[in-house]
Amino acid sequence: MDLELVTVGTELLLGFTIDSNAADIARAVSAAGGRVVRSASVGDDGADIRGAVGDALERSGFVVVTGGLGPTADDITKHAVADLLGVPLVLDESYLRELEERFAKYRRGPFPPSNRSQAEMPRGARVLRNRRGTAPGLVLEDSKGTVVLLPGVPLEMRTMVEEHLVGMIRDRLATESNSPPVTRSMTLRTTGVTESGLVSLLGGVEEALDDVSLAYLPGFEGVDLRLTAWSVPEEEAATLLERAAGLLRPCLGRCCYGMEDDDLAAVVLDELRSRGLTVAVAESCTGGLLGARLTAIPGSSDVFVGGMTTYSNEAKTAALGVPGTVIDDHGAVSEVVVLEMVLGAMRQLDTPAGIAVTGIAGPAGGTAEKPVGTVWIAAAARDRKRAVHQRFPGGREEVRQRSTQAALDLLRLVLLGS
Amino acid sequence: MDLELVTVGTELLLGFTIDSNAADIARAVSAAGGRVVRSASVGDDGADIRGAVGDALERSGFVVVTGGLGPTADDITKHAVADLLGVPLVLDESYLRELEERFAKYRRGPFPPSNRSQAEMPRGARVLRNRRGTAPGLVLEDSKGTVVLLPGVPLEMRTMVEEHLVGMIRDRLATESNSPPVTRSMTLRTTGVTESGLVSLLGGVEEALDDVSLAYLPGFEGVDLRLTAWSVPEEEAATLLERAAGLLRPCLGRCCYGMEDDDLAAVVLDELRSRGLTVAVAESCTGGLLGARLTAIPGSSDVFVGGMTTYSNEAKTAALGVPGTVIDDHGAVSEVVVLEMVLGAMRQLDTPAGIAVTGIAGPAGGTAEKPVGTVWIAAAARDRKRAVHQRFPGGREEVRQRSTQAALDLLRLVLLGS
Repeated sequence: MDLELVTVGTELLLGFTIDSNAADIARAVSAAGGRVVRSASVGDDGADIRGAVGDALERSGFVVVTGGLGPTADDITKHAVADLLGVPLVLDESYLRELEERFAKYRRGPFPPSNRSQAEMPRGARVLRNRRGTAPGLVLEDSKGTVVLLPGVPLEMRTMVEEHLVGMIRDRLATESNSPPVTRSMTLRTTGVTESGLVSLLGGVEEALDDVSLAYLPGFEGVDLRLTAWSVPEEEAATLLERAAGLLRPCLGRCCYGMEDDDLAAVVLDELRSRGLTVAVAESCTGGLLGARLTAIPGSSDVFVGGMTTYSNEAKTAALGVPGTVIDDHGAVSEVVVLEMVLGAMRQLDTPAGIAVTGIAGPAGGTAEKPVGTVWIAAAARDRKRAVHQRFPGGREEVRQRSTQAALDLLRLVLLGS
Repeated sequence: MDLELVTVGTELLLGFTIDSNAADIARAVSAAGGRVVRSASVGDDGADIRGAVGDALERSGFVVVTGGLGPTADDITKHAVADLLGVPLVLDESYLRELEERFAKYRRGPFPPSNRSQAEMPRGARVLRNRRGTAPGLVLEDSKGTVVLLPGVPLEMRTMVEEHLVGMIRDRLATESNSPPVTRSMTLRTTGVTESGLVSLLGGVEEALDDVSLAYLPGFEGVDLRLTAWSVPEEEAATLLERAAGLLRPCLGRCCYGMEDDDLAAVVLDELRSRGLTVAVAESCTGGLLGARLTAIPGSSDVFVGGMTTYSNEAKTAALGVPGTVIDDHGAVSEVVVLEMVLGAMRQLDTPAGIAVTGIAGPAGGTAEKPVGTVWIAAAARDRKRAVHQRFPGGREEVRQRSTQAALDLLRLVLLGS
């Protein structure tokens, strides 16, 4: 079942707002088995809205429109679409009373006339309840097809997509076919290996994936491998993806730390928790990011004890007990110092495991011998410890994020004994 | 000068990728004085690309297309647009040699035939150099108008917008008029005050803004006030915005910490630097975010010495010297403890200034007396110190980010003596 999207808002065309609504709706539609074939954005202008919705309706017969349903003067989507379909707006008395009651409950003062316009509906439209706000959604049907209007506030829009739109799509698909085709994806998350490294690891496996496509999605946290099965019956999709993932996994080995949106920090916390270990961190160039990544995970407090961020050399000595002479002899970015840092944090906070990072994030501070992006990382758990040296590309933020991810991964590998 | 955008990529219509390119181009076009009147996304399908680009060209006469210029089989934008305009593809020998040389420099092995297709250009097209990648941009002109093709990789696309597209727009505007109208914005950043608090502070000033519109943009870091002057001559835009900002600023007082994309962490570092002060941090619920915010700013190392992240009570005692009896008597989230934390960090790291945060980020750990979102924050500089208590809304990440921002702001206020 094909459909088109139209997102309305002058902010979108000025570029101040990124159109995340279109992506959110597209994901929900695809998951439900529908297919978005085109998406358009127009400003808060009656003629432009009529033009875009009219074109889309003519092409696909089903259009989802978001934005411009609020009470202010620039909210004109409802009027434009009613115009397009040639139906007048009429006051929905029962919805007006509902609005007035809701208003009285939360606010003082009289009901503002601007909100009254929200109770005016195109004649014949079906009203979709909005549990999160005052602008209801609308479904308009005529001989040209169906137009669904949803509010543009992301939380309201997302809720209404789940509660109304997904069901409409499933219903239509069910009448079209007993097993409507769906498009499904599965993501394997890897880190510590480049795109070309993955190509080597996978060897010829990619050709054996048949109808499942493989996309390499590199980012600061590593390279995600996204497998997609396109337009297949729902039960077949899962089988195809499982088979494809089963072919890839043995090639990836320990490069693969998780699936879908698994966070490496959560994976590491789980590995620690299952071994009954607590952890401390010592950070220099990452400045707190490593601790922030770990503590972003709810429930991390049973494993993560704390950390020292030691930006200056003096702080490394005062807080972690790294001898000043060691820093003088080897430099703050060195194997000896990173090992002293990790052991210092474990000693100070009395933990059996630890992670440490020291490096040059830039833009200043690089030398010929230790250019910007040079980072030493150490991880320790009980009697095992490892230190590795990396040279990361990119600017300050990229180096810091890559360092954080690599540090988490080193502890994972130490825990796994590899 | 009106134009339309077409972004190409099946990923966009599956919702896996949010279309940030459209927003990036729109911002650059608006700043240059142009106006995006419609934006559309289509999949990697020849007919859909021809349809969307053809419609846009007919409406506006100038279309910017991104995506689908790479070497792989699903990159068909160049072919589709050449088809649409009825021109054949011809091999650009000099560009092919350039590609071969570039390839030889970075890779081993023979030049892959798939890359050869990148040197095929629609006859008569002007090639736009891509300094960041191998897919060049293209400008095609015919009686219907102009089509500009840019690669979809965001970094490549943004660079080419700045180096090529902006100049094309300015040139066209210059031939259309001596002083083409522009739309310009100015942002005042506030924190520590709600939207409705700002409405009270601004009183009737909003009505005096005349042709400048005011938008309230709330986020975890505070509320940004965006002033926009719409479609006015360039020299007038600056005057209008300065006048409007001049009306708002006295009402805002110290709530306003900066302009445009000023970061509060950078503002605080500047205030410390100008007073010759160094700073240390002590964090509990923020887990390192406060240090990460400060050290994200290049050059922070001359002011930021380090910090202690003390997640457990034992860590607060071991690393910061907070007496266990004080924690037992008052709880870890209390005024006494947060003050002990800030003084402990300053003492350990020998700094004259400090910031500390302790709170309950959730989802677990809340009580009737201290619900999730309860946070104590302290800041100190020389002999001045202050502690404040906050109750933040939202989930774990929101509480942590709001706490970090509030902690930075408290030190700013202590430094300003207010």
